[in-house]
Amino acid sequence: MPLPTTPRAVLIDLAGVLHIDDQPVPGAVQALQALRTRGLPLRFLTNTTRSPRARIVASLQAMGFDIAADEIQTAVLATRRLVEQRGLHPYYLVHPDIASEIGPSHAEPDAVVIGDAGPHFEYDALNTVFRLLMQGLPFIVMARNRYFMARDGLTLDMGAFVAGLEYSSGRQAEVIGKPAEPFFRGALDELGIAPADAVLIGDDLADDIGGAQAVGIPGILVRTGKFRPGDEHHPAHRPAAIVDDFAAAVARLLGGWGQRGPAQR
Amino acid sequence: MPLPTTPRAVLIDLAGVLHIDDQPVPGAVQALQALRTRGLPLRFLTNTTRSPRARIVASLQAMGFDIAADEIQTAVLATRRLVEQRGLHPYYLVHPDIASEIGPSHAEPDAVVIGDAGPHFEYDALNTVFRLLMQGLPFIVMARNRYFMARDGLTLDMGAFVAGLEYSSGRQAEVIGKPAEPFFRGALDELGIAPADAVLIGDDLADDIGGAQAVGIPGILVRTGKFRPGDEHHPAHRPAAIVDDFAAAVARLLGGWGQRGPAQR
Repeated sequence: MPLPTTPRAVLIDLAGVLHIDDQPVPGAVQALQALRTRGLPLRFLTNTTRSPRARIVASLQAMGFDIAADEIQTAVLATRRLVEQRGLHPYYLVHPDIASEIGPSHAEPDAVVIGDAGPHFEYDALNTVFRLLMQGLPFIVMARNRYFMARDGLTLDMGAFVAGLEYSSGRQAEVIGKPAEPFFRGALDELGIAPADAVLIGDDLADDIGGAQAVGIPGILVRTGKFRPGDEHHPAHRPAAIVDDFAAAVARLLGGWGQRGPAQR
Repeated sequence: MPLPTTPRAVLIDLAGVLHIDDQPVPGAVQALQALRTRGLPLRFLTNTTRSPRARIVASLQAMGFDIAADEIQTAVLATRRLVEQRGLHPYYLVHPDIASEIGPSHAEPDAVVIGDAGPHFEYDALNTVFRLLMQGLPFIVMARNRYFMARDGLTLDMGAFVAGLEYSSGRQAEVIGKPAEPFFRGALDELGIAPADAVLIGDDLADDIGGAQAVGIPGILVRTGKFRPGDEHHPAHRPAAIVDDFAAAVARLLGGWGQRGPAQR
């Protein structure tokens, strides 16, 4: 899938691309500034569901990134919208930090919704969800990422708990965040821009690149965050480009700005 | 797969067949006594890995079952034997109650071994295992059962955590307990009895019946424990017989003893 010669919008993953934990990826703050000078609309798409959007924005701004809250599309908020649209009354297994953003669990739930509870994925809560799934309640998950990069190394993401609940219950989860098509399409529809005129930059081969390219958005894979060398030779997911980091991706898009080593493919 | 006209040994699952939590299944104590009068060798095969064998025996005896420790083959002890045979130094994620039976984790592990930690499946421990798996350590699991029956309902078993770790790490676990072939074969080899001359009685369609029949042991599925109505119509796993409970299974084997309603198929 070719990159557009003149992209009209850029979709950007956050964790692993712009920052790792509370540290910016080297050169990323400056690269985002350079990208801003072109006046392109930007959307930041994140499957991080351990923090509310306000805290994500505050953290990015503290690292020096020029990003506004309404440019950030989170799997949490997309899930809240979907729950409202469908009129559901879910049981939520989520991180306590997003409880106020997503709302309280209902006493008589008609759906199960899971976010990345992280250390709060406890056996009793998982067993409660398992039993609701065995009763046939719809199974909605904000994301199903396998792992993410933290400062001390690759770290287990919520996908492990989703896959485990699917295995034991025999039920299939509906994913709201990346790589779900509506999550990508929603960002572009809001901007009125066609997929082939946009670009996505991410560090997750399957959920960022695979998801974006499935709806026709060319993806640039960066070699930061959860990137692993084997990702370059995946049989199914072939990024439009693979570059060292966010700064190199921006350089590639802007035709040479601040290039640090050769952009590849 | 036909039942033998005169079985020479009977393999029996424990939880869900003879008892649920600390309550015997109605009629099971008497049925086991009746089976004992025939002098058949019996082996009890359990994937329960939250308790050491001594406690399992004590619990069964307290419920009135005439069972000796050396008749019980547990996934914990089979795993300990395998670890010794291979000379491994594992990191263990297991229930604290079996720590003394399986041994301590090694500081520099060369394998990962998981049992049913139950409420002790905590995020940090799972993340530690995930990171060891990403380093390429062999992944050994005592079992991968989906769920089991507790007195308050179907309950999440360790298979959820195994499947989740497999998903996130991209690694495949080696199972030691049921339905692994060596686990069934070992019980019969010890007795010197051919698979077709034995019978297994279990409540788990895939791990008991499917596992036994894969090595040629006809399986009787009981409608107690984790049995669910859909199990009767599974496309792949077709038990040699399906009966109401352990007493009916014994009646079927002994040709009518204490029959409670018609044995089916």
